[in-house]
Amino acid sequence: MAGKIKILEVGLRDGIQNENVHFTVSDRFYILKKLISAGLQHIEVGSFVSPKVMPSMGLTPSLMKKINRSLTISKNVELSALVPNERGFDMAFDHGLKSMAVMTSATESFSKKNINCSIEESLERIKLICKKARRFRVRIRGYLSMAFVCPYEGVVSVRKVLNIAEKMKSAGVKEIALSDTVGGATPLQVSSMIEKISKKIPLSHISLHCHNTRGMALPNILTALNAGVQSFDSSIGGLGGCPYAPGSAGNVATEDLVVLLQGMKQKNSIDLKKLTQISHWLKTKKKVCLSSYMSRY
Amino acid sequence: MAGKIKILEVGLRDGIQNENVHFTVSDRFYILKKLISAGLQHIEVGSFVSPKVMPSMGLTPSLMKKINRSLTISKNVELSALVPNERGFDMAFDHGLKSMAVMTSATESFSKKNINCSIEESLERIKLICKKARRFRVRIRGYLSMAFVCPYEGVVSVRKVLNIAEKMKSAGVKEIALSDTVGGATPLQVSSMIEKISKKIPLSHISLHCHNTRGMALPNILTALNAGVQSFDSSIGGLGGCPYAPGSAGNVATEDLVVLLQGMKQKNSIDLKKLTQISHWLKTKKKVCLSSYMSRY
Repeated sequence: MAGKIKILEVGLRDGIQNENVHFTVSDRFYILKKLISAGLQHIEVGSFVSPKVMPSMGLTPSLMKKINRSLTISKNVELSALVPNERGFDMAFDHGLKSMAVMTSATESFSKKNINCSIEESLERIKLICKKARRFRVRIRGYLSMAFVCPYEGVVSVRKVLNIAEKMKSAGVKEIALSDTVGGATPLQVSSMIEKISKKIPLSHISLHCHNTRGMALPNILTALNAGVQSFDSSIGGLGGCPYAPGSAGNVATEDLVVLLQGMKQKNSIDLKKLTQISHWLKTKKKVCLSSYMSRY
Repeated sequence: MAGKIKILEVGLRDGIQNENVHFTVSDRFYILKKLISAGLQHIEVGSFVSPKVMPSMGLTPSLMKKINRSLTISKNVELSALVPNERGFDMAFDHGLKSMAVMTSATESFSKKNINCSIEESLERIKLICKKARRFRVRIRGYLSMAFVCPYEGVVSVRKVLNIAEKMKSAGVKEIALSDTVGGATPLQVSSMIEKISKKIPLSHISLHCHNTRGMALPNILTALNAGVQSFDSSIGGLGGCPYAPGSAGNVATEDLVVLLQGMKQKNSIDLKKLTQISHWLKTKKKVCLSSYMSRY
């Protein structure tokens, strides 16, 4: 293991969009400020999708306006947003973002159900976005959903994942987030996936995005970390699905990930106490039920 | 990794003794039957300590009587109990147990506070118990508490742990449970500990006993598993301390451990569905708050 581990906080996007609780622009702004104050340097603030498709993300433009109006973002902090297409790219860019994320899937079934197009079509969209991104010097990362297990197609082959990851890479995606969207991956699968992918794509371009449905997020992250992966997604408190609702589970909690990284002697400047204060606020003020270990107390 | 992984279910002892909820003899008997029916083969049913010291364990003799009266235990199933001294050994033996556990600590401070004697004194007791055990063909395992982090003395050195583990081994303890009593161990610590211990004591004599205070139980277990440890303790539902009470956390949940082992292709005959039914019963009928992932749904 070398270098500093990157944590991408996705609570304001992947987290909030999967919660039943409504988060106002002020709530999101408050969380964002607290995340930055806790030392997080990579934060996905939302998504520029149609509010019809994802109502909870309809407030992203308003949040960005508030950020631009009243927050000075240090150059060490990178804010980003998910953009589904060129129109989303334009909106995000107009709101001042220089870092964005795109999304595709490793399985056709999920692609059609989730982003309403085939994998090939989504890769075409990604190409167009990346072309624009080069012109405007925007950094693009990409989620590769269902990279391990798909609810419709079962265990996903490394070959399939690698094939799409390589296409994303050659389109210009700088970082590919292998996404265990349903939280079904196992440490054995993660280690086999990372080993094979690293032969074709440098691990500095790979990150791991874990949901915690079966409690395997931390074992999977530890496995990837030991295999050389240096970038992980997480959401504050484990936002993104009540742990007590059937089939629903949030991302791995940022505070739990930080404990693991500290335990692995991966230094960072994150203030664990401040992080858990945000989770405490989410629990008490927003009545969200959280799955994180470190926010229990 | 070779051989079959052993799971020792400690919910009826380490779990129950740290819960505020009262478990009647019938409750315990019900749980035990369900655990056996789910396929667990190693179950610690209680402890033969003075009820003054540990009131919740005062029902262990009554539970054993009920078991002897109304349950036929298959020879594949091993029941055991914790015994603090020769008197406890005698009682456990009189109740038909052929497998027992003793306990000491890696730090003087914890030993004095928890078992009210010095480490040396507790090792003397263990010697006497083991001597009796040889005569009566009783298998003895031993908990080595605070093997990683102690609330009074901080991080515990491998040298200290190894020194006591070797004394336990030569006294006749067949399996030494390295116990992360406060749940402060990290994967780095576990891997360093296992590596050094394995040079002196075969790993077939070592097990890992994790509490989940900081969510590190599964990463620690995965690390030990990868290093060759083949025996792990867990408690059904993660019994042993409400996850929402300050400073208190149960053992790693048996059902979560089983998911990890399945994910690591470690075959066993445990029925995950039946296990989670027990946790569901604990939550709904006994109103225990559980920390396990797999019992959330």
